[in-house]
Amino acid sequence: VKIAKTTKPIKTVGTVGTVKMSIRNPTLDNFYSADIAIIGAGPVGLFSVFQAGMLGMSSVVIDALSHIGGQCTALYPEKPIYDIPAYTKISAANLISNLDKQNSPFKPKYMLDQVVNLISVDEKSHWILRTSQDNYIKSKAVIIAAGCGAFKPNMPPLEGIDEFENKTVFYNVGNTDIFKGKKIVIAGGGDSALDWALSLAEIADKIYIVHRRRNFKAMDNTVKKIEEISTGSGVIEFIIPYQLYEIHGEFGILHSIDVINLEGDIMNLKADYLLPFFGLKMDLGPIIDWQLNLNKNHITVNPENMMTNLEGIFAIGDVSDYPGKLKLILTGFSEAAVACHNAYKYVFPDKALHFVYSTNNPIIL
Amino acid sequence: VKIAKTTKPIKTVGTVGTVKMSIRNPTLDNFYSADIAIIGAGPVGLFSVFQAGMLGMSSVVIDALSHIGGQCTALYPEKPIYDIPAYTKISAANLISNLDKQNSPFKPKYMLDQVVNLISVDEKSHWILRTSQDNYIKSKAVIIAAGCGAFKPNMPPLEGIDEFENKTVFYNVGNTDIFKGKKIVIAGGGDSALDWALSLAEIADKIYIVHRRRNFKAMDNTVKKIEEISTGSGVIEFIIPYQLYEIHGEFGILHSIDVINLEGDIMNLKADYLLPFFGLKMDLGPIIDWQLNLNKNHITVNPENMMTNLEGIFAIGDVSDYPGKLKLILTGFSEAAVACHNAYKYVFPDKALHFVYSTNNPIIL
Repeated sequence: VKIAKTTKPIKTVGTVGTVKMSIRNPTLDNFYSADIAIIGAGPVGLFSVFQAGMLGMSSVVIDALSHIGGQCTALYPEKPIYDIPAYTKISAANLISNLDKQNSPFKPKYMLDQVVNLISVDEKSHWILRTSQDNYIKSKAVIIAAGCGAFKPNMPPLEGIDEFENKTVFYNVGNTDIFKGKKIVIAGGGDSALDWALSLAEIADKIYIVHRRRNFKAMDNTVKKIEEISTGSGVIEFIIPYQLYEIHGEFGILHSIDVINLEGDIMNLKADYLLPFFGLKMDLGPIIDWQLNLNKNHITVNPENMMTNLEGIFAIGDVSDYPGKLKLILTGFSEAAVACHNAYKYVFPDKALHFVYSTNNPIIL
Repeated sequence: VKIAKTTKPIKTVGTVGTVKMSIRNPTLDNFYSADIAIIGAGPVGLFSVFQAGMLGMSSVVIDALSHIGGQCTALYPEKPIYDIPAYTKISAANLISNLDKQNSPFKPKYMLDQVVNLISVDEKSHWILRTSQDNYIKSKAVIIAAGCGAFKPNMPPLEGIDEFENKTVFYNVGNTDIFKGKKIVIAGGGDSALDWALSLAEIADKIYIVHRRRNFKAMDNTVKKIEEISTGSGVIEFIIPYQLYEIHGEFGILHSIDVINLEGDIMNLKADYLLPFFGLKMDLGPIIDWQLNLNKNHITVNPENMMTNLEGIFAIGDVSDYPGKLKLILTGFSEAAVACHNAYKYVFPDKALHFVYSTNNPIIL
């Protein structure tokens, strides 16, 4: 679906949202075009690719996570789901993999690890989306299937932390080599915190586990192993019950972290890295500013066509709201079908949509 | 779901429809009770059993056919369906079998080979349905998932034919022994007509195939075999292009059939049996008289809850109509969920419905 040529910059005539969208040098490499831009690669977004495809419409799917599947993949891949029609039981991971297979005739373009941060409209009434990876997508219709929003790590409320993020403060761990021989503060009391403490204990000089409670929400076995290291080599040290209080350093280089307990005692921990693991939150993000009609963080749509108050922008799945709405995956599938059938007239304004049973659809046969 | 005791006849306080419902001796054997009566055992009716079950509601399903699956089973069992979510491709027969398996935790009660011909309401606002097999079903909610209606054979427009039906005139063949050494008129030019001609030629004395065209809509191979018998033993004789014209006999005993061609020539065929195979039609049947709001043979519902104009009667799937309606199986699944969630308050008027993900639903675990 990559556009063959972009001869000149896109001129936007209007901006939806509070921030003026500036197209910075669109090039062949970061400019995409599709009939429909789908925001969210959860089950409902994925099924929209199929429904669009069956109606002869191309699509791109944008998602904040580095994989398709949304919550199904990120939060509970192994959990069995019982209410997908014609499946006695299917794991969330298999549901996603089957939906992906169903999409394969349409060669879906998944743009992962990025959120749509701006939306605009060009002089031909195309929607232009810009993602956080500075990709641009031009489309005639947009389907928002963003679930409860994009996943984001919960951040500790430390003043000035943004200066250190992705330099010495990480919310998820990529390359572990950088931690070799270093002092690390790991904050949090869940599985992620303790698993990483255990894993990094093999290469780090010192690991402080800062947790505001004495109890951990992690596997007993993991806690036990960490306690052994703590009383043994001492590479891991529990700082409990303490919370993060202040961050010290400059130019993104961390020097130390102050932690505080309920009595107000402050302790200073020398540290090269801070890894806060406070779980994920879901955040509708910039979509909230798109001048869409909202009802408590949900996008209000007309259930007849799943369209929002903006022409050609649809919202389906958990993010959408209308009278009688049920938040079920199977309901989202149906909404995907409705949205795609109604997006058709924006993609092909001059063509009438003729109903064809999938059995006889020449597109898939 | 069979009721344990019925001590006295049900008193009905109101009748929906044009015919007064008379409860003829309800006994333990023909009286059933369930939270929800589902009319139609197609994919959408079947999924309603599951949705009802997940919410703790029992159901019975009534269908005109002798098997579950509706059109999927009757018309195109081998056809692949491509737009069932998370199935790259599934045959209609497998779709039905999987939906049936999904229902198994709820031990569904399928009442087949019967149509609901009357509906009434008792003094406690329960719905009472009577079927053509003289079964009674008492329920607090009714879900009509009747598709395009019940399947019925198309009948030839012969005066007085009803006197012979199920005696010497059959629209489908059960026990073939009765045809041994007999003269049979088979009417029609499709697969059913020719397949039965071929099959009964082995035992019958004579078979006339009456068809108004010279061409048959059947497998070439079948036509060829029949032509061989026709020119060989002569047990089969083509009467083409002729149509049925008049039926002769008395007390249900057939004597002969008059057939006529386009020129008006009449021919008399001595016959013991008439088997008309003019295909199936779908007919909404008595439902049409239930004082439901209709729009061109479809039942108008409120899409917020899928309820008809009658309290506690819902309509879903192809039979239902609302603005933006898409006639897709997957849409019917979603409608089943909506109908069941809203039927809940009729079944349990004093209980609030709490949302539970299927993954954690104690009912199925």
